[in-house]
Amino acid sequence: MNWIDLVATLAVLQFIAFGVLVGKARARYGVHAPAVTGDPMFERNYRVQMNTLELLVALLPALYLAARYWPADVVAGVGAVYLVGRLIYRQAYLRAPGSRSLGFALSALPILALLGATLVGIAMGR
Amino acid sequence: MNWIDLVATLAVLQFIAFGVLVGKARARYGVHAPAVTGDPMFERNYRVQMNTLELLVALLPALYLAARYWPADVVAGVGAVYLVGRLIYRQAYLRAPGSRSLGFALSALPILALLGATLVGIAMGR
Amino acid sequence: MNWIDLVATLAVLQFIAFGVLVGKARARYGVHAPAVTGDPMFERNYRVQMNTLELLVALLPALYLAARYWPADVVAGVGAVYLVGRLIYRQAYLRAPGSRSLGFALSALPILALLGATLVGIAMGR
Repeated sequence: MNWIDLVATLAVLQFIAFGVLVGKARARYGVHAPAVTGDPMFERNYRVQMNTLELLVALLPALYLAARYWPADVVAGVGAVYLVGRLIYRQAYLRAPGSRSLGFALSALPILALLGATLVGIAMGR
Repeated sequence: MNWIDLVATLAVLQFIAFGVLVGKARARYGVHAPAVTGDPMFERNYRVQMNTLELLVALLPALYLAARYWPADVVAGVGAVYLVGRLIYRQAYLRAPGSRSLGFALSALPILALLGATLVGIAMGR
Repeated sequence: MNWIDLVATLAVLQFIAFGVLVGKARARYGVHAPAVTGDPMFERNYRVQMNTLELLVALLPALYLAARYWPADVVAGVGAVYLVGRLIYRQAYLRAPGSRSLGFALSALPILALLGATLVGIAMGR
């Protein structure tokens, strides 16, 4: 099984799911398009989606770049930590935005690790 | 001709065009950077661009992931529906944000179809 | 050395760095999550990150698409202009949002050049 493709596909689907939940939050909290402010709980949902967008844009190239230089299974395992980190981030952010650090770290550090490993791989001319 | 590369390139160019139109809307409706609110028509333009950003980030990996497991021509054809869906979405959103559902579905469903097909392909070990 | 991978990795790291600076600006200007407005200097920092997100989503596919049809060294060189353009853009935007045009052009034109070159490459059936 291609684990990197699996992690990448799940990361995109997770982001889409967060977007669907923003759509539901629009209805629930009465925030009508094009507004993206007006209710604190809607704004938390929306910020989770936007922050996940920011990280997904970094994760996907990080996965496939790292996989050019390092074993695919290890790269996919590091990427899987991101998926869990995002779930923790979402739960924490909705409960209290100030508690989002752990989930953020668990999703941002795997990306930095993959990009750092890529730079090492490039420099070693592998 | 590489149809997937063509659809991917056109999707990125479409997104850039939507961004140029946001720039024009800034001038037209008097919304000066860094503000992104203050005029409803500007906000519609801006939300179209942001929503297209959210979907483009999912479409591009979906195209190339699906193409690893399924025929490129079929994948490119599904991707072409996204391009049309985005045009319909933009027209509808600018006219009345509440009427954006059809255009949204026509651009989101092709992405979900490609990601679903990718999961099937991964599971089948193709 | 794989120059395209290097430019791509640096572009993602640059974007992450801009995100870290937004986090610092949150603390410095007292804008607490989930808010993204309330202080003009925070908003400038945030808009730089968002605009870089919009361009990064176009740059990464542009780099790898162009590299399928044209020499990798030339593609990487064009991509390197983007990196410099983003730095100029950030400095200018933080000083005065109205002065951001040069930095924007230096980061957007390389992307358009790569996408245009890709379309030529596809049409030529290379």
